[in-house]
Amino acid sequence: MKKLVRPEIPRKTIYRLSVYLRCLQRLKQNQLQTVSSEALARAAGVKPTQLRKDLTYFGQFGTRGLGYDVEQLATMITDLLGTNRLQPVVLVGVGNLGTALLSYRGFEQEGFEIVGAFDQDVRRNRDKPLNTPLFGMEKLGELIQQRAVRMAIITVPAAAAQEVANQLVTHGITGILNFSPAMLSVPETVMVNNVNLAIELENLSYFIQD
Amino acid sequence: MKKLVRPEIPRKTIYRLSVYLRCLQRLKQNQLQTVSSEALARAAGVKPTQLRKDLTYFGQFGTRGLGYDVEQLATMITDLLGTNRLQPVVLVGVGNLGTALLSYRGFEQEGFEIVGAFDQDVRRNRDKPLNTPLFGMEKLGELIQQRAVRMAIITVPAAAAQEVANQLVTHGITGILNFSPAMLSVPETVMVNNVNLAIELENLSYFIQD
Repeated sequence: MKKLVRPEIPRKTIYRLSVYLRCLQRLKQNQLQTVSSEALARAAGVKPTQLRKDLTYFGQFGTRGLGYDVEQLATMITDLLGTNRLQPVVLVGVGNLGTALLSYRGFEQEGFEIVGAFDQDVRRNRDKPLNTPLFGMEKLGELIQQRAVRMAIITVPAAAAQEVANQLVTHGITGILNFSPAMLSVPETVMVNNVNLAIELENLSYFIQD
Repeated sequence: MKKLVRPEIPRKTIYRLSVYLRCLQRLKQNQLQTVSSEALARAAGVKPTQLRKDLTYFGQFGTRGLGYDVEQLATMITDLLGTNRLQPVVLVGVGNLGTALLSYRGFEQEGFEIVGAFDQDVRRNRDKPLNTPLFGMEKLGELIQQRAVRMAIITVPAAAAQEVANQLVTHGITGILNFSPAMLSVPETVMVNNVNLAIELENLSYFIQD
């Protein structure tokens, strides 16, 4: 079992690192070499004090009066996030949402490669051909080991999610992006991020009422 | 401009209501008529004290010794969330991710109908036919008004997102589900929920490092 990694850094700080990185990438595209903390904070939609506090967790950056070196800060954040090389990911559950996500090319652009998709029923009728190899669940352990996969996306129905999570954890997965509405119970060495599209809409629905 | 609705209730409570609702729906499917707070809390992955505290915001529920009436609590939450009738939603940005979301049938199952999809380029070549009517941006105001739409999904690239948000707000949208990596600036009467799939993976990537 792995130990928990740097638990002292707030999760929101890690999220904001991803946002800062995207801002820095845009600055790079626009040929900018340095950026003040005020300008970077504004671009990221946070207060400059927040930005400086977030970066302080990882050391000292920036030169007084000159700001941050765009290239250097982007590289540092990429290294920190571990996305400096293509990360292999497996996806389990090739129904509607799973198929939709497999057709989404945004993951690869951001450094994640879905190396295999898994489903109980590999012969299920699907609208269009998948670009990702599709396997039955019995191949899960083999592929995870072969490709040294640590991250998985779960897009199975709620009733199947916990069983799938158990299998993933057994095979060594330590990061799960859970699209099912089920709350997963996993060892504390495994990190789960939940994304529930319907719940996001439902949550908005509450707030837009008169 | 609308006033902010019930700002005193924590957003996390509203999220958890959605989770409780899904648990209750499963209990209903299994023909259960009552549930104890302990059992419901366990199913939802929270502590019983949390569940009781969340529900206290909305009045008194449950009978000591008998627990909650499943049907009644589910109806109450559905009413609160405003999903007791099909909510119309527009989607702006029919690229990869937008197309993927349009093919996802989960929204409709949860009470949301995507009544129109909008794109700058309605003639763009897409892999497969859409089930949703596709319009140019110039039709946005008209459809929002006709269908009394309040909620929108943004799936345009970061650089276009703020301009799209401005248009949506002008036309009366008050809830935005933002899939673009841009941080949107909107009036405080408008609620934005951000979902960034790549950032979710990137965030996991940080935590799975040795």
